[in-house]
Amino acid sequence: MDLLFLGTSSGTPTRARNVSGLGLLEETGKGWYLVDCGEGTQHQLLRTPLSLHELRGLFITHVHGDHCYGLPGLLASAGMLGRKAPLEIIAPAGIEPWLRSTFSLSQTYLSFELVFRACETLGPWHCGTLKVEAVALSHRVPSYGYRFTEARPDPRLDIDRLDRHGIPRGPIWGRLVRGEDVEHEGRILRADDYVLFTREPRRIVVGGDNDRPELLAEACRDAQVLVHEATYTQSIADKAGETFGHSTAASVAAFAQSIGLPNLVLTHFSARYQADPARGLSIEDVRAEAASHYQGELYLAHDFARLRLGRDGTLMLVAPPQRRAGSAVSDSAAGSGAGTV
Amino acid sequence: MDLLFLGTSSGTPTRARNVSGLGLLEETGKGWYLVDCGEGTQHQLLRTPLSLHELRGLFITHVHGDHCYGLPGLLASAGMLGRKAPLEIIAPAGIEPWLRSTFSLSQTYLSFELVFRACETLGPWHCGTLKVEAVALSHRVPSYGYRFTEARPDPRLDIDRLDRHGIPRGPIWGRLVRGEDVEHEGRILRADDYVLFTREPRRIVVGGDNDRPELLAEACRDAQVLVHEATYTQSIADKAGETFGHSTAASVAAFAQSIGLPNLVLTHFSARYQADPARGLSIEDVRAEAASHYQGELYLAHDFARLRLGRDGTLMLVAPPQRRAGSAVSDSAAGSGAGTV
Repeated sequence: MDLLFLGTSSGTPTRARNVSGLGLLEETGKGWYLVDCGEGTQHQLLRTPLSLHELRGLFITHVHGDHCYGLPGLLASAGMLGRKAPLEIIAPAGIEPWLRSTFSLSQTYLSFELVFRACETLGPWHCGTLKVEAVALSHRVPSYGYRFTEARPDPRLDIDRLDRHGIPRGPIWGRLVRGEDVEHEGRILRADDYVLFTREPRRIVVGGDNDRPELLAEACRDAQVLVHEATYTQSIADKAGETFGHSTAASVAAFAQSIGLPNLVLTHFSARYQADPARGLSIEDVRAEAASHYQGELYLAHDFARLRLGRDGTLMLVAPPQRRAGSAVSDSAAGSGAGTV
Repeated sequence: MDLLFLGTSSGTPTRARNVSGLGLLEETGKGWYLVDCGEGTQHQLLRTPLSLHELRGLFITHVHGDHCYGLPGLLASAGMLGRKAPLEIIAPAGIEPWLRSTFSLSQTYLSFELVFRACETLGPWHCGTLKVEAVALSHRVPSYGYRFTEARPDPRLDIDRLDRHGIPRGPIWGRLVRGEDVEHEGRILRADDYVLFTREPRRIVVGGDNDRPELLAEACRDAQVLVHEATYTQSIADKAGETFGHSTAASVAAFAQSIGLPNLVLTHFSARYQADPARGLSIEDVRAEAASHYQGELYLAHDFARLRLGRDGTLMLVAPPQRRAGSAVSDSAAGSGAGTV
């Protein structure tokens, strides 16, 4: 399971960072999920191997523009590319009528169905190969985090049970191990009854904007990774006298330390933190502040950073594929990435 | 007066071209106007010298997403940057309620006022230093072109008249020549009564999506430049059996030839026309088709192309300012620009 960052700036885009967007990729490298969709997310996707045909679910954490203004254009482009598969959108309830009225204004008729689920009332639920839970956070508007759990980690047939139940070897076993329920001699065999999972599932928690990281304590139980905003450093927040509903690097790091979280990925940085410290405050200030509160593995995201969560629960940077010389955004990513991830 | 192209692709962005956006710059190089605002227009602006503080008017040709989905983000960013000056938005009437509901959903409160004018009912009207007229075109949805006329080309005082009317030399004259109406001895002196314009005004016509270029014949009278979409070549349109409400390079060029237009700028190209012909149809096919129907000065726009309309009515390419090595979009612009403009 990979995390591919499409936007890591808060509020407004900069030359090096777009507004929020995060791809969560299945291990196959094909099916993927999108968390938040700021303006320009579809443009960022053009610089990645991700296809809008293979998008399995789209999650919005809250209604602020830097997290959702890219939705109409991304969906319209998926339509123009001829997507047919229905797309599940998990979002605050206000997103659906806004999108529908936007498409009505622009006379946009999609070639595929949008299936909306309000995150306010989402129970534990499956999307593609993941189990998903929503967690209410604390921000200026209602905001949610999502906990993604691998639904079928390394399935293996429960052969003893299959034999006890007299289910013959053959194609049926193959379908069961792939997770398909099968009709056999007039009854339904549920795949989950005949499959054992041979390791702990991978769990990734992605927070929306949030000024109380501790609200994610339960969601982070047994999770290997938390991706969370760290819009400001504490010193800047102290000077401003408020955080505008955001977390500081210190507050998120202290929370992660308190629960023994193995991997923390910070993102959604104020534009004041620059890759080049000569131009202002440095992103290294954010890193230093977080590192002083947290002893686990710490990553600061940048656009197009790709992190892989292995089956053993370790998180590591994936070397980006070789990029075409002169490619536009690759240069930008390389520039912004100096010293991060 | 300069034209600075921010997006030249139709429908969806590509790696080399964004969707529609066109900056029209006053000769001072500071105040400017934006025609259309596809998604990512604010991102493109980050690669130009243009400031959202100096934007004097925003014109939308029609409600299709690739011409307006960038509005909410661009306006929200202008607000976050602290813009205070009211902004005039000239657009189809449906844009205002959509923008207001979008800001309501996202709880976005701008720091400046939006002043909407419906292009459907716009009479001749002044915006900044320009006189503007809207022209109804033909497309799948109502679409408009805009004719921009320099309102005060090289003003000079009518000294004979000032003397005849006994208006004394001094600060009053200075204010009149700058276009200010002045109160003097209990009556209002209208600047336009005491100023002569010493050359023909520059006129630029910018079309929206349109399959009947001849609807712009009257607007193009005395205009030096027409910027018009040429989404397809005629051969592709003939194969498809329809144009989806768009013009072909041939139809626009033939129209421009028929009215003796001195400068034609084509834009809004289908993504099938690539800068690198090895990758598909070539943008050079568009140029060749247009050139075979038009003997005036022909330009094919690319992102970040900047054209200058001089006081003498000639249009020329402005060399882009020296760009930072490794700058992201400059590479992209250079790549897409091979063989264009």
